[in-house]
Amino acid sequence: MYDLIIIGAGPAGLSACVYSSRQKVKTLLITKDYGGQIGRKAVSIENYLGFSNISSTELIKKFRDHLAPMESIETVIDEVIQLDKKGGVFLISTKNKKNFEAEAVIIASGADPRLLEVPGEKKFLGRGVSYCAVCDGAMFADKTVVVVGGGNSGFETAIFLNNYVKKIYLLEYGLKVKADEENQTLVKKLGKTEIITQAVVKKIEGDKFVKSLTYQDLNPVRDSKGEKKMQNKQISNGAKTKKMKKLAVEGVFVEVGNQPATSFVKGLVDFNKRDEIIVEFETCQTKTPGLFAAGDVNIGKYKQIISAAGEGAKSALAAYDYIQRKRLKK
Amino acid sequence: MYDLIIIGAGPAGLSACVYSSRQKVKTLLITKDYGGQIGRKAVSIENYLGFSNISSTELIKKFRDHLAPMESIETVIDEVIQLDKKGGVFLISTKNKKNFEAEAVIIASGADPRLLEVPGEKKFLGRGVSYCAVCDGAMFADKTVVVVGGGNSGFETAIFLNNYVKKIYLLEYGLKVKADEENQTLVKKLGKTEIITQAVVKKIEGDKFVKSLTYQDLNPVRDSKGEKKMQNKQISNGAKTKKMKKLAVEGVFVEVGNQPATSFVKGLVDFNKRDEIIVEFETCQTKTPGLFAAGDVNIGKYKQIISAAGEGAKSALAAYDYIQRKRLKK
Repeated sequence: MYDLIIIGAGPAGLSACVYSSRQKVKTLLITKDYGGQIGRKAVSIENYLGFSNISSTELIKKFRDHLAPMESIETVIDEVIQLDKKGGVFLISTKNKKNFEAEAVIIASGADPRLLEVPGEKKFLGRGVSYCAVCDGAMFADKTVVVVGGGNSGFETAIFLNNYVKKIYLLEYGLKVKADEENQTLVKKLGKTEIITQAVVKKIEGDKFVKSLTYQDLNPVRDSKGEKKMQNKQISNGAKTKKMKKLAVEGVFVEVGNQPATSFVKGLVDFNKRDEIIVEFETCQTKTPGLFAAGDVNIGKYKQIISAAGEGAKSALAAYDYIQRKRLKK
Repeated sequence: MYDLIIIGAGPAGLSACVYSSRQKVKTLLITKDYGGQIGRKAVSIENYLGFSNISSTELIKKFRDHLAPMESIETVIDEVIQLDKKGGVFLISTKNKKNFEAEAVIIASGADPRLLEVPGEKKFLGRGVSYCAVCDGAMFADKTVVVVGGGNSGFETAIFLNNYVKKIYLLEYGLKVKADEENQTLVKKLGKTEIITQAVVKKIEGDKFVKSLTYQDLNPVRDSKGEKKMQNKQISNGAKTKKMKKLAVEGVFVEVGNQPATSFVKGLVDFNKRDEIIVEFETCQTKTPGLFAAGDVNIGKYKQIISAAGEGAKSALAAYDYIQRKRLKK
């Protein structure tokens, strides 16, 4: 029986550990790996206050080193598959068939990359399709690749791949890309990337490895002067080209957002449309007393390393309050 | 005319600068000093994820170094005395009679130490009365001092003073102290501190320097066996000693919480009972569109360096969204 179980060792989970350790809360950390989404970062991290430029590997090491001397924290490398609450106690089952109990739980399990869900995506996983440029980028030296997703992670992937590849197509579903202006400027400056907006990915093809990606072009027809009509809504449906276009590429990097890792928790919490756990932000508490959710797994709009770490601290202090109050009632 | 003005350079304000710089938002930082409450920390900081043990001076330096290369951030050392909004633009006046305009503002002005408001407190300021052990502690070598406040900052002050002083009385108004168990254990282990609960400070006396502090003892009378009756509410008012007690001390360290620094902002925001600015936590936005409040100055329950930095990031991203949307409407 633990006071607190923390699920996940990304910035939220690790910051929660730092705080629960200081409160001498008997804590079990259950995690598949260390660093969470940080491990997928393709470029150096420049926005975690205190480190003006640090690689993901180094930052994860700093975070782990912070935890090393903490006596009240036990760690198990495993995956939570079920979380229940019975008689005021949380029950956790893992993939390795272990069972654990705790008075309070912090879910900091983060998010997994969202899939495109198009033909060829699963077939070519590891054979041209990747969700992690930092893991796989070097294998695409002097090749032409496509990055799907026009947010920060898509642009950061393009920046990272620039060191290796010959040419990058960056595909965005919407009317315009959503990345930081700094990232946009840098991609422009680096010069290898061609940005294509209103592109809906349809399929990935190849033989042994990826050879092409086909997308539907939702861009409106151009008028006689060749100018793009700016307002999509002003154009009737028939005026869109809806043309299928095929790009000859050997790599497909998918950066279309994340799927919160919450499959184990159905029932005890409410979700929003994006499957994120609904919390009360001041404490990160879910609808179940004693159950908290911090970092990428919750409904927070801005998914940042520093804000995840901040939420980890808040949730650990709130969990401590919860445990103390519960004991006083006994 | 700036895109964004950030008021205050504690962890919230500095983290906001990091994010607004990445968005190429034309930003003015107006601050009295750097580091905010961190500068008052009497012990090393061990709970900011990534730095397992760092002095306040070093951490502030790391934060400032992070900002140094940022071209889109201008800094003015000054104090904001008024903040208004006219025709969708924020107007700021400072103590040095400067005026600035911006489309959005982040208030990260933190909090100042709360006063005891007892006779002698102001008279002996700098002559025995201190709000900053880290600044003044060394002057009390081998003396007997009192720390007022049984929260973390009171205990951390006692831990810090332990290196210098002969004896410490730690006074807490409530039934029990509120500090982290780690801090409580450490104070016990260090051995120089006597904790007195239910003590209401009444006056500070001396001649040139502090000589004594008088408090009212709200502890219940002890029964014949000398055991303290635990439940205050079970004891009739008459059963309390309410005795005035005088401690012979040469130093008084006041650690009874903080007063949010918000005098310049009346009108545009709502406050709670503790004078903290009411915000919507996901974005840190106040009731006025384009006006945000991050860190110690807002209603957040857990005032931590890491959570202030997280809120700084959120507020800067939300301010960027606001500025972008406002421009699209034009």
